[in-house]
Amino acid sequence: MKIREATENDFENIWPIFHEIVSAGETYAYSQDTTKDQALNIWLKAPSKTFVIVDNGNILGTYYIKTNQAGPGSHVCNCGYMVSAQARGKGLATLMCEHSQEVAKELGYKAMQFNFVASTNEGAVRLWAKLGFETVGTLPKAFNHPSKGYVNALVMYKWL
Amino acid sequence: MKIREATENDFENIWPIFHEIVSAGETYAYSQDTTKDQALNIWLKAPSKTFVIVDNGNILGTYYIKTNQAGPGSHVCNCGYMVSAQARGKGLATLMCEHSQEVAKELGYKAMQFNFVASTNEGAVRLWAKLGFETVGTLPKAFNHPSKGYVNALVMYKWL
Repeated sequence: MKIREATENDFENIWPIFHEIVSAGETYAYSQDTTKDQALNIWLKAPSKTFVIVDNGNILGTYYIKTNQAGPGSHVCNCGYMVSAQARGKGLATLMCEHSQEVAKELGYKAMQFNFVASTNEGAVRLWAKLGFETVGTLPKAFNHPSKGYVNALVMYKWL
Repeated sequence: MKIREATENDFENIWPIFHEIVSAGETYAYSQDTTKDQALNIWLKAPSKTFVIVDNGNILGTYYIKTNQAGPGSHVCNCGYMVSAQARGKGLATLMCEHSQEVAKELGYKAMQFNFVASTNEGAVRLWAKLGFETVGTLPKAFNHPSKGYVNALVMYKWL
């Protein structure tokens, strides 16, 4: 298991993971219809850096890191993590989140913020809490879940 | 006093307001060095709509409205408001915020969120509270104020 920076060539193997997760509409604030081109921009081009977690040459997960707010907010970064369906429950999100905190510090960031964690995504909420993220905000009915309707979204934050 | 949709021709008169506020670095999450071209994109091109408040042909303030999060978050909008220094204290922010809530409903939004209100911007915090916005999050030391250092930023939210 190895985490390395992603190249544009990796996108063919990132896209199936992205598409599966985003088209479900249960966790990420991207349109369920996000196209492959849009995903390339969102996940690989717009962020500061993108990483993949690889086992035997297979990409099992990926994350990005970017500045969350410009100017007076630019010391706080934002990350997003995705794990392929067949690789869940093996601690890959933990590995990537810990890795991302080290990368964040190397890049000079002082804190990390998750802006929009669906409260129904209980596994993620529990994991981020375990990794030191505090729920600093609750956005009432801000997440339109495909089966559960309007549910709260959480803002989670960690000073690094 | 009239609020109307902005055109690109208005930008020459919006820019001095934007530049004065953003270069001070005390309230908005834009780089203090934001250029005129970047400002045009941020304030007029990227948002769904931009408005100006005009008195006797003079632009005294401006606001934008845009979708805050895509996909499952796209029923929540975000706005930003700016009033020129010489027109402050006359209730223009109130007029624009009330106007923006009507526009938001016309555009089909169900809620409005301010993502990053500097806690030191006490006048704004008080005004948004008076207009029905609830502080739903506090981001610890997320705002790097030019004279006060790292201060909290607030997330404020209103279901429309």
